[in-house]
Amino acid sequence: MMYKTILALALSLSCLALRSGAAMAEEPISPIKPPARVHLGMVELGKKLYFDPRLSKSGFISCNSCHNLSMGGTDNLPTSIGDRWQEGPINAPTVLNSSLNIAQFWDGRAADLQAQAGGPIANPKEMGFSHTLAVQTLETIPEYAREFRQIFGKDSISIEQVTEAIAEFEKTLVTPNARFDQWLLGKADALTEQEREGYALFKNSGCVACHNGEAAGGNSFQKMGLIEPYQTKNGAEGRAAVTGKDAERFNFKVPTLRNVELTYPYFHDGAVNTLTEAVDIMGRLQLGRRFTPEENAKIVAFLKTLTGEQPRFNLPILPPSADNTPRPIPFGQ
Amino acid sequence: MMYKTILALALSLSCLALRSGAAMAEEPISPIKPPARVHLGMVELGKKLYFDPRLSKSGFISCNSCHNLSMGGTDNLPTSIGDRWQEGPINAPTVLNSSLNIAQFWDGRAADLQAQAGGPIANPKEMGFSHTLAVQTLETIPEYAREFRQIFGKDSISIEQVTEAIAEFEKTLVTPNARFDQWLLGKADALTEQEREGYALFKNSGCVACHNGEAAGGNSFQKMGLIEPYQTKNGAEGRAAVTGKDAERFNFKVPTLRNVELTYPYFHDGAVNTLTEAVDIMGRLQLGRRFTPEENAKIVAFLKTLTGEQPRFNLPILPPSADNTPRPIPFGQ
Repeated sequence: MMYKTILALALSLSCLALRSGAAMAEEPISPIKPPARVHLGMVELGKKLYFDPRLSKSGFISCNSCHNLSMGGTDNLPTSIGDRWQEGPINAPTVLNSSLNIAQFWDGRAADLQAQAGGPIANPKEMGFSHTLAVQTLETIPEYAREFRQIFGKDSISIEQVTEAIAEFEKTLVTPNARFDQWLLGKADALTEQEREGYALFKNSGCVACHNGEAAGGNSFQKMGLIEPYQTKNGAEGRAAVTGKDAERFNFKVPTLRNVELTYPYFHDGAVNTLTEAVDIMGRLQLGRRFTPEENAKIVAFLKTLTGEQPRFNLPILPPSADNTPRPIPFGQ
Repeated sequence: MMYKTILALALSLSCLALRSGAAMAEEPISPIKPPARVHLGMVELGKKLYFDPRLSKSGFISCNSCHNLSMGGTDNLPTSIGDRWQEGPINAPTVLNSSLNIAQFWDGRAADLQAQAGGPIANPKEMGFSHTLAVQTLETIPEYAREFRQIFGKDSISIEQVTEAIAEFEKTLVTPNARFDQWLLGKADALTEQEREGYALFKNSGCVACHNGEAAGGNSFQKMGLIEPYQTKNGAEGRAAVTGKDAERFNFKVPTLRNVELTYPYFHDGAVNTLTEAVDIMGRLQLGRRFTPEENAKIVAFLKTLTGEQPRFNLPILPPSADNTPRPIPFGQ
């Protein structure tokens, strides 16, 4: 009797394992994995640098200004505000789960997070500084100088060290345990019926052709406006600006749908404020399909289950400037 | 024998208590007390509001933009950057320990933290919004609406609730356990000889006449440029702008010296970058005294012992806007 019970239990457990294993393998979106193998000292240094406005000419703009970790890793503005309130050319993509992207920026012009991190610092329309000046500033701050030396074992700071540390911090900015992931991992009641129906529609209608993988996007370049052209005043060329190939005009990196509830407004021009409108436009322009209001609501309900646990950490305390630290230039020359 | 030992111990303990009690009573600066009796729910709500740029017209500027808790509760700029990069009229004072101030703003025009908190939101040169629009925005955000209802028990949000919550959070922004406070509380080796000599000079030279109490300042209005006039291009009138009394022209609230190592640049115009220069100017203009370089270095060393434990908390995660939330206006009209 006892033996039979144990045998039955073992059999049902192995069936369960097989079934959920099979189920996971079949789904086109996979759960976000927690970060692995990061250099913790570098993460802590990178976190400070990410929040430090002394990497900008004005002393006012940090990475977190436009990729705000209180707000889904974005600024929730159509395009960003840069040095002297200059208007940015494109919507700031979320930094959350950006380590999963095939490349960085909407046009993929940076191969990885480290290559991306140097861009805004030296862009005159963003942080408006230079790599040389940023490094010179950090070198005069005794706590930074010590911390860089401790981590990199070199006598001087380089921009490569700065961007490597920022990138290492950014690798920790993943958002596991979304309700959708809990469902993928076997918690059947993690989603409502409406949300499951939304996911079915998302799969059956073709959305999943581009929005798949761990980040539900971020892993390919696709043409914006496949069936119908996308109307925009934004001048971004997309992938063609990188490859020079005319055929890739208006090809953009597919944005991740992870935390999409938090990363409004939508599309590379940030022209669309609501998920309802974004789903409607995507259906028509990319799939040639008009979702009914009921279908649209189901897909939106599903999309909101992709909001994961936001990174939780203490606001970093920045080391003070020294007497010889160059001062920011917020106004005038 | 045993009895004698206990008696001797009891006597020496009571002497110690008397001595340190007497010592503390004599010192003109007293230790920062940790916050007491705050409404924790309101603190958590206030923390979110403090970090929420949706209280500004542009959606880009929050309380933390100019009173940055990563940087001693200031922006480390001479004067602040406001809506559309407008130049602020005066140096942003630190929010740290501001609950100990006799009144708020350099000219004391706000009686308390709650009265202060509403100012920048509606100031066209700072956050550029209005109280009505800020409240309307918050009311459309479901998580905020619930949280306000839970805490204040009312059906609608008011600006008074918003500023009360922000002020309640600000009451927690005290910085106890500075090395100087450890010394005051009896840890004799918490200060070096140079630092103790700096404190003696600080007391004997008259600095302490204005910089006294728990915050080493913040508790009186005093004329800037008492012996010699202070040269500045800044147009601030000081206390006279509030009271209308010509005699109070150029009277400003004495700034706290708590965390002064972090709150550069100094004075109401933010014109001075280093403590060395600030101590020199204060000596000459307020006390008619030229400190030698050695004396100056001792006072600066003492001032750096006033850096306390910075407030430590998780970066707040802000609730997302809803479809009907009014959108920020970063550019154009």
